Amino acid sequence: MGAEHTKRRKALLAQIAGRKLDCLVVTHPANWYYLTGFTGESGALVVSMNGTTLLTDGRFTVQGKEETSGVKIELQEGGLYTALGAMLRRKGLRRVGYDANHLTVSQWDILRKAMGGKTRGFEASGLVAHLRMRKDAQELTIMRKAAILAGEVLEGVLKLVRPGVRESELGAEIEYQMKKRGASGASFETIVASGPRGALPHARPTAKKLRKNELVVLDLGVILGHYCSDMTRTVHVGRASKRVRMWYRSVQEAQEAAVAAVQAGVTCGEVDAAARDVLKKNGLEQYFVHSTGHGLGLDVHEEPRIARGQPVRLEAGNVITIEPGVYVEGVGGIRIEDDVVVQAGRNEVLTRVKRDLIEL
Amino acid sequence: MGAEHTKRRKALLAQIAGRKLDCLVVTHPANWYYLTGFTGESGALVVSMNGTTLLTDGRFTVQGKEETSGVKIELQEGGLYTALGAMLRRKGLRRVGYDANHLTVSQWDILRKAMGGKTRGFEASGLVAHLRMRKDAQELTIMRKAAILAGEVLEGVLKLVRPGVRESELGAEIEYQMKKRGASGASFETIVASGPRGALPHARPTAKKLRKNELVVLDLGVILGHYCSDMTRTVHVGRASKRVRMWYRSVQEAQEAAVAAVQAGVTCGEVDAAARDVLKKNGLEQYFVHSTGHGLGLDVHEEPRIARGQPVRLEAGNVITIEPGVYVEGVGGIRIEDDVVVQAGRNEVLTRVKRDLIEL
Repeated sequence: MGAEHTKRRKALLAQIAGRKLDCLVVTHPANWYYLTGFTGESGALVVSMNGTTLLTDGRFTVQGKEETSGVKIELQEGGLYTALGAMLRRKGLRRVGYDANHLTVSQWDILRKAMGGKTRGFEASGLVAHLRMRKDAQELTIMRKAAILAGEVLEGVLKLVRPGVRESELGAEIEYQMKKRGASGASFETIVASGPRGALPHARPTAKKLRKNELVVLDLGVILGHYCSDMTRTVHVGRASKRVRMWYRSVQEAQEAAVAAVQAGVTCGEVDAAARDVLKKNGLEQYFVHSTGHGLGLDVHEEPRIARGQPVRLEAGNVITIEPGVYVEGVGGIRIEDDVVVQAGRNEVLTRVKRDLIEL
Repeated sequence: MGAEHTKRRKALLAQIAGRKLDCLVVTHPANWYYLTGFTGESGALVVSMNGTTLLTDGRFTVQGKEETSGVKIELQEGGLYTALGAMLRRKGLRRVGYDANHLTVSQWDILRKAMGGKTRGFEASGLVAHLRMRKDAQELTIMRKAAILAGEVLEGVLKLVRPGVRESELGAEIEYQMKKRGASGASFETIVASGPRGALPHARPTAKKLRKNELVVLDLGVILGHYCSDMTRTVHVGRASKRVRMWYRSVQEAQEAAVAAVQAGVTCGEVDAAARDVLKKNGLEQYFVHSTGHGLGLDVHEEPRIARGQPVRLEAGNVITIEPGVYVEGVGGIRIEDDVVVQAGRNEVLTRVKRDLIEL
């Protein structure tokens, strides 16, 4: 990956030069991993024409040397942002770009004071996030595997779905199977939401037991080779009622319409509308209480947002989720979610699990 | 827990009034959970004399109503910080306190603009963090259980430690056992670092197999009832050499000295020095590359920091980790970590696993 990292830093340097900055301070772990391969949790990366420096504390210096190439590792003495300010001053970097999405107000206050008067900060938010939106071939290879792995885990646990099983048992089994099959972990806490709890789109698994005639929302993702997947299927314990089938069909139709809308050049808002219009047509729009999807990569939520009215145009190499749902208080929820790669004139669905209603 | 939440909000209101603020905006999930019981991942809580309001999006409104009492739930329309600014203005709250540790520079920019000219922001960082430092009886009851549970999980997996087992298999088994035994999950990604990889204090488990004559650092914690535990034991595969035994004894002595130093009124720096002095005496100071510990509670890292020179004095009810270690590049690492409650004139060690070297 050394060559890949060098290429990414070069692309970033072009952006830095274009903004007449001397350097960019990278303070988000997924961003410094993207640019260098460093997997440590604390530090700051400074990318400049004169080279790339990683400032980190004693827990991570050995790791920094092992994981990166072409990056100078500096041991941080004292607080991170105080040490960073002093380092920037010492290196004579005067025009310092920073990402306002990845610095707290207090970190920025400390850094600004530590840089002193001649070293000035300039907001340069989202430069790395923007590069990360277009996945390269290597990244897509990993993300295909991550999506398939999540699907296999889901299919593997379906045999455990039956009345009397606790949501928490299903959640534990899902996350265990992820690791057994080679994932480094879950990309977020697995959601298992049965019956009325399914009306909470982000319900954590509880000790509640599944009952007959309940919907169960299963939302899970793995981290594989640092990349996230994210998928949802909703199953029914026993035979579903007519009403539930109608809801399910509407969500499935909405999800498939939004997937079909995905291709390079389309706006995120148009993809969102494709799902929303189907639910509206079926009188279910008020039960769809969130946006249609989000970008996916090193972070489980990244750019772009697939939401109402978003004017951002999809580009080839973007990876997004498509996940409309309906949530009815007191009854339950239905959500179907796939990971999709944007291509020129088409799309590639990474999630390989059937979308039809599964009755168990 | 309703009464507990009301009491906490009352204590916070006294701080708010003391600073002549009209309200405090709470933007950190662990902080709003502490004050209301709301477990959703997105929103903003506004605590004022005129009542407490939770602003959140459609994914979390039902959950907000179910989980809180005495809290008004408002549905957020549009972006969170834009909606929050408009709400503050609408409520006529003029002097708005915010926590600079829990707002990014860009969130604050959006909020400031949305509040407009008459509604002004005042930094009021750490108010909730400070309240959270003193755990009440109810919190300590949960944290005792969380520490014991982590210890049981560790003891349960020791039988799997043998040459040929992969770090990742141990990590998966540890996290599976946590959930099987009732934890909602791991409080951080479990560390399993064998042989030379142990020299990386925060190494993630890899596919590396354990070998004979290696040290293995096992660092794990559970989340139980929303509270974190955090513990480390280092075991040796096979009989340890004289040199390894000497290192281990030094770390154990350092850890026990620091634990013995813990009581109300002592500074965090004094506790750190108690560990550091023992390692210095044994010529190992340069291998202790991090601080001695940190506060523990709803977050796995919270106030206070147990680090060199920290002047903060421990108070009864604080819960901290004590975790000195030595890390030798090319050889491995040794760390021993317990969770400790600060009491008047004494301390209470929550971790119930022996600290002596375990050879397997």
